[in-house]
Amino acid sequence: MGISRILIANRGEIALRIHRAAHEMGIETVAVHSTADADAMHVRLADHAVCIGPPSATDSYLNTAAIISAAEIAQCDAVHPGYGFLSENQQFAEIVEAHDIAWIGPKPEHIGTMGDKVEAKRTAGELGLPLVPGSDGAISDVDEAKKIAKDIGYPVIIKAASGGGGRGMKVCESEDQLEPLMQAAGNEAKAAFGDATVYLEKYLGDPRHIEFQVFGDGKGNAIHLGERDCSLQRRHQKVFEEAPSPVLSDKERNRMGEICANAMADMGYRGAGTIEFLWEDGEFYFIEMNTRLQVEHPVTEMITGVDLVREQIRIADGKPLSVKQEEIEFNGHAIECRINAEDPFTFAPSPGEVTSYHAAGGMHVRVDSGLYAGYKIPPHYDSMIAKLIVYGRNREGCIMRLRRALEEMVIEGVKHSVPLHQELIRQDDILNGDYSIKWLEEWLAKREG
Amino acid sequence: MGISRILIANRGEIALRIHRAAHEMGIETVAVHSTADADAMHVRLADHAVCIGPPSATDSYLNTAAIISAAEIAQCDAVHPGYGFLSENQQFAEIVEAHDIAWIGPKPEHIGTMGDKVEAKRTAGELGLPLVPGSDGAISDVDEAKKIAKDIGYPVIIKAASGGGGRGMKVCESEDQLEPLMQAAGNEAKAAFGDATVYLEKYLGDPRHIEFQVFGDGKGNAIHLGERDCSLQRRHQKVFEEAPSPVLSDKERNRMGEICANAMADMGYRGAGTIEFLWEDGEFYFIEMNTRLQVEHPVTEMITGVDLVREQIRIADGKPLSVKQEEIEFNGHAIECRINAEDPFTFAPSPGEVTSYHAAGGMHVRVDSGLYAGYKIPPHYDSMIAKLIVYGRNREGCIMRLRRALEEMVIEGVKHSVPLHQELIRQDDILNGDYSIKWLEEWLAKREG
Repeated sequence: MGISRILIANRGEIALRIHRAAHEMGIETVAVHSTADADAMHVRLADHAVCIGPPSATDSYLNTAAIISAAEIAQCDAVHPGYGFLSENQQFAEIVEAHDIAWIGPKPEHIGTMGDKVEAKRTAGELGLPLVPGSDGAISDVDEAKKIAKDIGYPVIIKAASGGGGRGMKVCESEDQLEPLMQAAGNEAKAAFGDATVYLEKYLGDPRHIEFQVFGDGKGNAIHLGERDCSLQRRHQKVFEEAPSPVLSDKERNRMGEICANAMADMGYRGAGTIEFLWEDGEFYFIEMNTRLQVEHPVTEMITGVDLVREQIRIADGKPLSVKQEEIEFNGHAIECRINAEDPFTFAPSPGEVTSYHAAGGMHVRVDSGLYAGYKIPPHYDSMIAKLIVYGRNREGCIMRLRRALEEMVIEGVKHSVPLHQELIRQDDILNGDYSIKWLEEWLAKREG
Repeated sequence: MGISRILIANRGEIALRIHRAAHEMGIETVAVHSTADADAMHVRLADHAVCIGPPSATDSYLNTAAIISAAEIAQCDAVHPGYGFLSENQQFAEIVEAHDIAWIGPKPEHIGTMGDKVEAKRTAGELGLPLVPGSDGAISDVDEAKKIAKDIGYPVIIKAASGGGGRGMKVCESEDQLEPLMQAAGNEAKAAFGDATVYLEKYLGDPRHIEFQVFGDGKGNAIHLGERDCSLQRRHQKVFEEAPSPVLSDKERNRMGEICANAMADMGYRGAGTIEFLWEDGEFYFIEMNTRLQVEHPVTEMITGVDLVREQIRIADGKPLSVKQEEIEFNGHAIECRINAEDPFTFAPSPGEVTSYHAAGGMHVRVDSGLYAGYKIPPHYDSMIAKLIVYGRNREGCIMRLRRALEEMVIEGVKHSVPLHQELIRQDDILNGDYSIKWLEEWLAKREG
């Protein structure tokens, strides 16, 4: 095909990231932007720019019609959706392809499959990915429940089938509690959702979030690029990601990576994807699959040397994967800190003008950011303004380098997360790699208390 | 010993580079600076700062007494000299060591040996490094000269023993020209220097500058970290450096690297060093050895992953080399562009206030610079203000990435070399790696004409 001009259907650092990869391949870029982003870095650097609407994302970055028109007018032969916005919108992907424009993403039907929680789980199971064991759907018979619970082992969790927000959820530690707790959960669910149906799952008390980066060529070939540990989260938002995970051995990485790559090969998956797992006591449990590039993809790039955006563009252009599984080496350690325009400890948003900006530099330090002195961070979008990614020959060296890089970051005029990261990388648990998905919220609560 | 506080006896990007390595090792830094550099980045970032004199380098960065006093007052247990200034001053190194302060550099006597051109050549020859073949000193007998010239092969160059600046230098293409040209050179030398003595050397018409990075532990162990090709020069100033050299095979690299490492092991060399060669038609000819860190050291760091400043500090601290020769891998390709505050084509210096600064970012892009918006580049020192270093999986990818990184560099308020580099990396000869040490000056002359 020969992609020669890409429309970047996104904003912020990821729009810049895509622009960079495209230019390094000799491909032109077209930025689309809301009126609030007219002065954004990626708009300045792109070869062409088209304004697609007012600040509200619904009217601009989610405005399918405006984006398709821009692609046609600017004669783009490909669209890269980045992450968020339209990146996991099956219909948008279909419309792009219907216009004979290359969609730099997975096959639309795979976006659909993995976007539906139930369908995703079923597919994952069929593809051989490990699921959280439990009752196969609703359960009302207590003896049956006891049998299942014994099989998967206590503690188990009883969940309302129509549930959400923790209501109708009960953790059960032993068999004698099972009947009363099923009753209680059912009653609670009935009261909250008008439906007493419950189901049973293995309870993960203190899991880590470990995800695998996969890549398929859409023709039955697929590779994995190892894992990322993203356990440091607040309200399901990742704060700090690292690769490799401090708890995985090479053997486990290879075993689980192979399972993921085989699943993608079987599926005929195309492009970049991330298979997310909870991990506890050496076992993986599938959560979901993201059919797009991930915010934290640079840590994988750091330890493998593979440019993931370049790879996405190549695949969309009908080219084969640029590396074979056996050519991929995992070297050293990488950590990414997400830097948001917000109070570092209350997390209250802090949009506004950046009066002074200086990125950390030097060896093995990467900053992905659209910030510049004088840039006005608009209040309309996600608060992430920069990613600081640091590499070291080992985890200890990586953390030492991260410390000095954080010392060098200058962002004035708005509040931001640098002070949070500076505190985090001085905590023993972080230094020891000993943290679950609950760690950050517990630490924040303690810190406040 | 345990180095815990390093005095950085330098300024600019290299002072910042040393600060970074030290902090990544948990070592404190003391900046010394002239009054002109009070607001320099490395002074701001260092743990302590001492003003050592007025702007003139003679009174500050070359002021041995002031620097030693600063080291004593600030209780430093090591001194890193960077490059230039006192880095190759044997006497300074001796004084530092006499004060029981670790000298982060080679043994003082080796600085002396390699700093004396005649002594350096003699030592290099003894250590098995290939020299430019020629008469062993002065020659007056024409028949003897003919015999030597025949041995080394035409063309040969006749040079005045007391010469310099090209006077008393004659290139001789064939035997019948040898006698008249020796006569002419002798007469010219007599007129210019009052001494008609001449000597003979193989003439290198269009050589490349290829240098090897070496490292010794001072106890007889030494490694090489491959070569850098620094052929792109103007008036002996390097402009653009790359590793590996486009003309060396792995086999040649290993062969020559081994010769260099063995020489350093035999010498008992300590710390970082660079052995510079001219290279023509597959042969290396020793020029000189620099007993210090080189400006262009980051390209080696990029392709080997070895942090050279960290390694220097470790060695000065009595630790062994952190890598064995067989552990060193050369991966991918790296290029460094030196960015000077000067007109990009006339090279007229352009000091002054940087009104706006934005460094290139993203994957595999490194910027080593003390610049920031509002910084005033003082007119007293070297004009280099930044180094842009870019890595790619191969040379072509590296050049593509360099192009996009150069597009991103914003330095306003002063003239600088970015436009020069942007033109250079579009020249066929550069793209093909086909350039000698004469290329840049010839290209500049053509461009002007």
